[in-house]
This record gives sequence, C-alpha cells and structure tokens, in this order.
Amino acid sequence: MSTTSSNHYDQLVSYYQTINHFNHAQAMLGWDAAANMPKGGSDARSNAMAELSVHVHRLSTQPQLADWFANAEQESLTSEQSSSLREMKRQWQQAALLPEDLVQAQSIAGSKCEHAWRTQRQENDWSGFEKNWKEVVSLSREEAKIRGEALGLTSYDAMLDKFEPGTSTASLDTLFSNVKTWLPELIEKALDKQAAEPIILPSGTFSTEQQKSLGLEVMKLLKFDFDHGRLDQSVHPFCGGVPSDVRITTRYDESDFVQALMGIVHETGHARYEQGLPKAYTGLPVGEARSMGIHESQSLFFEMQIGRSKDFITHLSRLSKEAFNAQQNPVFAEANLYQIYTRVNKGFIRVDADELTYPAHVILRYEIERDLINGVIEHTDVPALWDEKMKASLGLSTQGNYKNGCMQDIHWTDPEGKKVAHNYKNGCMQDIHWSGGSFGYFPSYTLGAMYAAQFMSTMNKTVNVEAAIQSGDLSPIFQWLSDNIWSQASLHTTDELVKRATGETLNAAHFRKHLEGRYL
Amino acid sequence: MSTTSSNHYDQLVSYYQTINHFNHAQAMLGWDAAANMPKGGSDARSNAMAELSVHVHRLSTQPQLADWFANAEQESLTSEQSSSLREMKRQWQQAALLPEDLVQAQSIAGSKCEHAWRTQRQENDWSGFEKNWKEVVSLSREEAKIRGEALGLTSYDAMLDKFEPGTSTASLDTLFSNVKTWLPELIEKALDKQAAEPIILPSGTFSTEQQKSLGLEVMKLLKFDFDHGRLDQSVHPFCGGVPSDVRITTRYDESDFVQALMGIVHETGHARYEQGLPKAYTGLPVGEARSMGIHESQSLFFEMQIGRSKDFITHLSRLSKEAFNAQQNPVFAEANLYQIYTRVNKGFIRVDADELTYPAHVILRYEIERDLINGVIEHTDVPALWDEKMKASLGLSTQGNYKNGCMQDIHWTDPEGKKVAHNYKNGCMQDIHWSGGSFGYFPSYTLGAMYAAQFMSTMNKTVNVEAAIQSGDLSPIFQWLSDNIWSQASLHTTDELVKRATGETLNAAHFRKHLEGRYL
Repeated sequence: MSTTSSNHYDQLVSYYQTINHFNHAQAMLGWDAAANMPKGGSDARSNAMAELSVHVHRLSTQPQLADWFANAEQESLTSEQSSSLREMKRQWQQAALLPEDLVQAQSIAGSKCEHAWRTQRQENDWSGFEKNWKEVVSLSREEAKIRGEALGLTSYDAMLDKFEPGTSTASLDTLFSNVKTWLPELIEKALDKQAAEPIILPSGTFSTEQQKSLGLEVMKLLKFDFDHGRLDQSVHPFCGGVPSDVRITTRYDESDFVQALMGIVHETGHARYEQGLPKAYTGLPVGEARSMGIHESQSLFFEMQIGRSKDFITHLSRLSKEAFNAQQNPVFAEANLYQIYTRVNKGFIRVDADELTYPAHVILRYEIERDLINGVIEHTDVPALWDEKMKASLGLSTQGNYKNGCMQDIHWTDPEGKKVAHNYKNGCMQDIHWSGGSFGYFPSYTLGAMYAAQFMSTMNKTVNVEAAIQSGDLSPIFQWLSDNIWSQASLHTTDELVKRATGETLNAAHFRKHLEGRYL
Repeated sequence: MSTTSSNHYDQLVSYYQTINHFNHAQAMLGWDAAANMPKGGSDARSNAMAELSVHVHRLSTQPQLADWFANAEQESLTSEQSSSLREMKRQWQQAALLPEDLVQAQSIAGSKCEHAWRTQRQENDWSGFEKNWKEVVSLSREEAKIRGEALGLTSYDAMLDKFEPGTSTASLDTLFSNVKTWLPELIEKALDKQAAEPIILPSGTFSTEQQKSLGLEVMKLLKFDFDHGRLDQSVHPFCGGVPSDVRITTRYDESDFVQALMGIVHETGHARYEQGLPKAYTGLPVGEARSMGIHESQSLFFEMQIGRSKDFITHLSRLSKEAFNAQQNPVFAEANLYQIYTRVNKGFIRVDADELTYPAHVILRYEIERDLINGVIEHTDVPALWDEKMKASLGLSTQGNYKNGCMQDIHWTDPEGKKVAHNYKNGCMQDIHWSGGSFGYFPSYTLGAMYAAQFMSTMNKTVNVEAAIQSGDLSPIFQWLSDNIWSQASLHTTDELVKRATGETLNAAHFRKHLEGRYL
C-alpha cells in the first residue's frame, strides 16, 4: 500500500514535534530569564531548565530511535522527507555521541571556570584562570576525540561540525589565509583615509523610551513581523524564542544610541530568518536554521550589507532626528552617521570591533583553538601566541595584558556554550551546546560576514538593491532572502544552499570586494 | 537502620520535585501567553502547553506511585512528612481518578461551548448556548459521579473537594443560609445611608505610566518582594508564576485608575501568600497554598480588610496625589476615595460587584450549581431560577436577559477551568483544573471573604492593626499572616489551619460584624 510507505518516517515526525514542544518551553524560559526574571527567581528557574534539558536529552537519545531511523531509511521518501530524515538523524547522532559522565564533568568544570573567570578577568589573574581552564581544555579535547572518531573527522573538525556541519579546517585555512593576504593592508589604508575625515560623536542623553521607539520604527522598515515577535531589553542582546514568536532584545545606554540601534538591526536579521523558516517543517530539524554561520550571515546581511549602507543610513538619519526631536543636531546628519557606523579602529576587544578589524580577531582565535584542540599547542601557550598574533594582525601588544588578551572572551571557559551563541536555534542547537563545547564556534562569525557579502553580490544581479533601500520598501531584498535562504531552512547542506543561491560555494573574493568598496 | 526509615518517602519527594519543574515551565508559559505573547505565537504555545500538561499528567499518574505510597505509609515519618505524604497522595488521587476519554470529551465540549459563548453571550443567544452547554453539564455530572464514588462523597461535594478539600454542601448550606438572613437588610441600610453621602467620580486621563508607578508604590507599602516577583499587564488581571518568582498583572484604564489600583492590592495579597510559602517544602504539594478559598482569603484580606480601610485609604490618597501630580484634585481626597472604594450598588454583574453585594452573586450560583450537579434541576431550569433568585436577593429581574443573567460567567462553560481561577496554584491545581470542571469553584470567593474577616478579628486581639496601617509599617500584620497562614502552606487541613489561627472553624459572624462595621 503506497499510503504506508512513510509510516516510520511519520512516526519520527511526530516524535520530533514532541521534542520541539519541550524545546519551546526551554526557549521561552531562557528568554524570560534574560529579559524579565528577578534575581530571586534564578534557582528555581535553573532547576526547571535543567530538568527540561535532561528530559529533551533523554527523548533525543531514546534507544528505539536507532531502529526507527533504520526502518525509515528503507521507505520510499520524497526528497524533502529524505532531507528531513537526514537532519533528524544528525541531531540524534550529535545528542547520543557523548557519554553522560563526560557531559556532566564538562558542565561542572565549565561552570567553575566561568564563575571564577568573572572576577579573574577583572583582576588580570591568568595563573588563577589557567588552573581551572586546564580541565576545561582537557575535557573538550576528550569530547573532540570521541566526536572525531565517531564521525571520521579530525578532532577540531569534529568540533566545527557542531556549529557548521560540512565545514573543515582545510577550507577554513584556505579562506582565512586568503583574508590574511589583503586584510592588514586594507585596514591601514582605511585608517589613513579616515584620519582626514571629521566625525562628531553623540553627546547628551538619549532616553530609553526614545531609543525604543526609534528601534521599533527601524524594525518596521525591516519588516519585522510583530504578530510573531517582540522587542525587549536584556543585559546581553540576543535573539531567542521560537519561529512563530521571536523575541529579540537589546540594551540601551542613555549616553549613546549608536550600539543599541545597530544592535536592533542585527537582531532583526536573525529574527527575520527565524520568522521566515518554512511552516511546512515547523518543529522538525529540517525546518530549523541551517547553521550558526548562515544565521550570522542573515544578521550581518541586515547589519553590514543593509544597515551600514549609505542609503539605509539616510533612513536612520531621518528616523533618529524624529525620535530624538533633534532636526538640527549635527550628530544625526547622514554623512556624520555614516562616519560613525563605518569608523575603523584597531582595538583589543572583539565585541567592540568594527566591521573591518573584526575578522582579524576571529582568525586569531580560530588558529589558536584549532591547534589547542588538535593537541599541537598546550593551554599555557595561549597568552604568548595571542600576543604574537595580535602584534602581527593589528599591531597591538597584549603581553601581560590577559584581561584584554586571551581572557576577554567567555567562549573558551564555558563548554556548555550557553553564553556564547545568540540564543537562536533554541531547538536543536541548545542541546548540542549543552552536551558540547564552544571550541569551534568562533569561525561562524566571519563565515557569516563572508556569506552575507556573497549573497549581496548575487542579489545585485537581479534586484535593484540600492533603489529598494532608497524607496523605503525593502521587500525585493527580503523576497530574495526568503526564496534563497529562509524558506530553504535545512533542506540542503550549507554548501548546497550557498551554491543554489549564488552559483558557487563560499568565495572570499566577495567579502574583499565589499570591504574595499566601503573602506577604500 | 534509622536513616533509611524514610527511603520511600524520600523517593516520592524527589519525584514530586521533578513534576514541579515541569509545572514551573507551564506556569511561566501561561504567564507569558497572557502578558507578552503576540497573537501569532498562540498555536505553537498551545501545543507546547498541551504537551507539558500531558507529560505532567503522565508523571502524576505513573502506575508505580501506588506502591510507593503504600510503602511510604509503612515508614516512620515525622508529622510534617506525614502531612506531605497526605498531600502528595491527594494530588495523585485527584489526577488518577478520571478516565482519559472523559477528560478528553470534557476538553472538547468545553472548548466548543466556551468558544461559541463568546459571541452567544453578546447576542443574548440562550438557545444556541443551551445546546452546547447541555453536553458540558452532562459530562460534569459524570465527572462528579465518578469522583463522588471514589471519594465517598455526594456528587457536588466531590466537585467542591477539587477546590476546597474538606468543605461540604452541609457546611456551605449552613454558612450561606446564615448570610442570607442578614445580608439583604444590610444592603438596603447601606444604600439608604450612602444615598445622602456625596461622591466625586474620577474624570480625565490617568496615564498608564503614572498608574503603574502608583501601583509599584502601593506594592512597596504592602512589602511585595521585588526580588521574587514582578508587576506586568494583561487583559485579565491574575497572579501567576512560581513562589520564588510571582508574576502579578493588572489592566490599566486610562480614564479611571480605581479598579487597577485596588486590583493591584488584591493580587499583591495572592502574591505575598505565594512568596511566603515555606522554603523547606519548595516544589512539594504540602508546600503549596492550602486551597482556593484560603488563597482568596489572602487577596481579600489585602483588598477588603486592609485596602478599603480608612487608614489605608489615607495612604492611597497621599500616593495617588503624588503619582498623578494632583494635590488639589477633590477625587483624591481621603474621604472621597473612601466613598469610591466602599460604594454599594445592586448590579447584574458579579465581577463588577462591590464588597457587600458580592456574596449575593456567589450564593445564587452556589445554589444553582449544587442542584444542577446533583441532578435536582436540569440545565434548562437555570434561567428561570436565576431570575427568581436575583429578584429575591438583589431585587433585579433578569427575565430574558441571559447576557446579564446566567450567561455572564465563563465558569460553567469551561470544564477545564483555565479561565476561571486566578492563575495561582499553577502547581497542583492546574492539573486538577484541566482534568476537572469548574462547577464547585464559586463558593471559594465568599469563603475567602469570610476567612479574611475572621483572620482580622483574631489578629486584632494581639496586633494593633490600626496603628500599623497608620504608621505605614504594616510588618506586624504580615508577620501574623506569615506565622498563621503563609508558613503553614498545606501542612494542615483547612479546618485545622483556621482553628489553629483563630481558635474556631469558619464562623460567618466575623464577616457580618466586619460588613456592619463598615457599611452601617
């Protein structure tokens, strides 16, 4: 009977939808903890979230799943069903790979290291940090080894696979060494050019209320769907929730609107990807965002390709003058806002870095974590390597300055990865985060920036992007993203997705061209 | 070995804490759905909440629980452990009592009836409503019969037991017939007296922002713990969340601050009960609020005993003048605010009723639902009985006016009871609501008002309540409530709790004295 040809597959669909309902709860509790929860609520919340995560892990690793997958693979499935099965199986393998005692040991070591890091970083206390971190690194290496053996990958490639399935050290080495051949010179040229350009920085008070209305106006311009999402506040901005109800947050600094405003543009990019995922696959792994790098490509498309373009800044200028009732304030003049949002500055801190120097921060981390996980270097080698690489890429010395050097990021102290990623992909990714580690995550940032540039380059062939932004109706841009990225969810591998959208796999040339166009 | 004497009990403790973690998730998702969720999020949210409720029901009715209870009952337990075991067992029995097909049929019939009721009530369409309601009543009678047989109670007493364990028709008949002997005359006298008293009603605009700051000030005065809770907005005000993080909501009407302000006082009473539950029993049934009537006694203690007292209204007068920047506005004068908050008015609608006429609305419903569930009357008899009883108690005819008569409440249309109760007791009670019906809930409102009056009467013997309110430091009042009610959670039966606190079981004389003191 032909109607029964996908019985086992259908059983899996229903099972993964059940898992998804618990992930929904987890996602909303996570958002609430960041956006609303009073401090006294945290113990009970942690317990509830831990219970949910144990429950999801148990469901995701049920022994009978092996049989269900084997049976479903014998069925005659459509191409979409096959993709869906592949993605379920991938999540199952990821979840079932690690022994529980390792996961638990990682969780304990990571919490201890991260907790101490909060004060150790402030005190520039490398030797205190190093003692805890040693264990985290060692357990992450063990994780990488187990993953690598199971997947037939090298240790670091197995860690990359958690965030960027299909990406390898070989391809990253090629991409990043290409970037290293032209980036330092480009940074110098941009700095030289900008030295002569005047800039007026914001001063005064920009009320939270006014910043919020401005943010909401910009979200409307970017066609955020307010029937399926909200804007709130949290200490660390993120995009959370579920595709039918995406919760983005920002943080307002009343002495400066610049970061919060562009942060909202960035998170709106994440949000529209989630809101644009195909309804037909709601709750299934194949209906989730493709990867961390592709997710970042959407936020960075919104922030870097659209948000910091001259034409979009014309809108920001008009809207911010209105929001702050400051028609004559020279800070909000188009040309000045453009200066603010494209200013290049060599600094120590990744999260404060501009578009142009950001890849240097990422590549440095990539090279270090790659060698660390593969056992080529030891964790005690990191500060000296950091100093050396910072000097080489940005000309800054971090000798003895652990605080603004290798101790600045929380990523490597937290194998659970909870604080690492944006909170999107609360579905599959949360579980992978929890059973995993954050080594292997950094490359996603720069991969995202590169994908975004490549998408724009292709889009420009069929869409009049400039005219769309100028007109204030950006629909043609979003239609392209929806057709080529959002609606495709995880139906294809990352390489296939990018090839279908742009005719080629990731090519750093588009990124270079974009940066040269903007900064030279 | 004496240390193993409570092994089985300990196993149950850990099991019920697990259930509680899922209830935590459910409570927060419910709050979020009411306070934050955009409309497009509701399908996914409903699915997630349904999944959680199925999961909690499954956990609550696990077959091995019967053995665990039997074993634990053989152990040597402390008196607190015995109470704890009794409450676990009670929840288990409540959850396991009903066949799943009945629960499902009730859910379907209830949703259908409730959905149609929303327009039928507006259209005064009794005959349309009656067709759906017939099935709801019939299924609730079936539920009551099954519960009654299992618990050795009459049908209606079995329904009461869901909300007010230990309360019976016999005791309610006695209490309410006592009230009926003096209430109508008291209402008439109060109306006569008030007819000569001038009142200035609010006019103008009272911004949401100002109302919210006023509400927060009043919550501070009432010592709401902001480390363990928040104030937000929702269409229907309620108290939700969990004891360590209590979420109360209100609704602001910018043309009138009166209802929102006293609503906040009311919900703060619920909240402080939850916040004051003993930490030693966190997550266990014995650590939950005693009953719906006792919960309501706390909100009504705050609203009626404290909130509408002359001394407290002095504070409200001062704080509202400040909040609205209206020192000279005669609306906010102490005497006028007191008039507003004690005004008696015979009306059709229960939820708009004042303190004095409210019991008449409840007693009418009690008498009808008691006879309906016991099969003494049929559902088609309800409109005529309503009209008859409304005439007798408040002198109002509802003949042909179903909309403002028997069709005004959602309670009886919704066997799941989700919209009935305040959202407190998201722990045990939510599950009972879902597997149960809302027949039997109405008496809790007036029981609560009576308990509150009795608590105040006892408190006055050892606490200078008047002086405490006047001083603005209400701690002695809250200390009494904490010692006698909050910290006792469900350690005792309701009768024991009240007897320990006041020296006697519920006695309507205190309620009468309170009302006569205020309204004569």
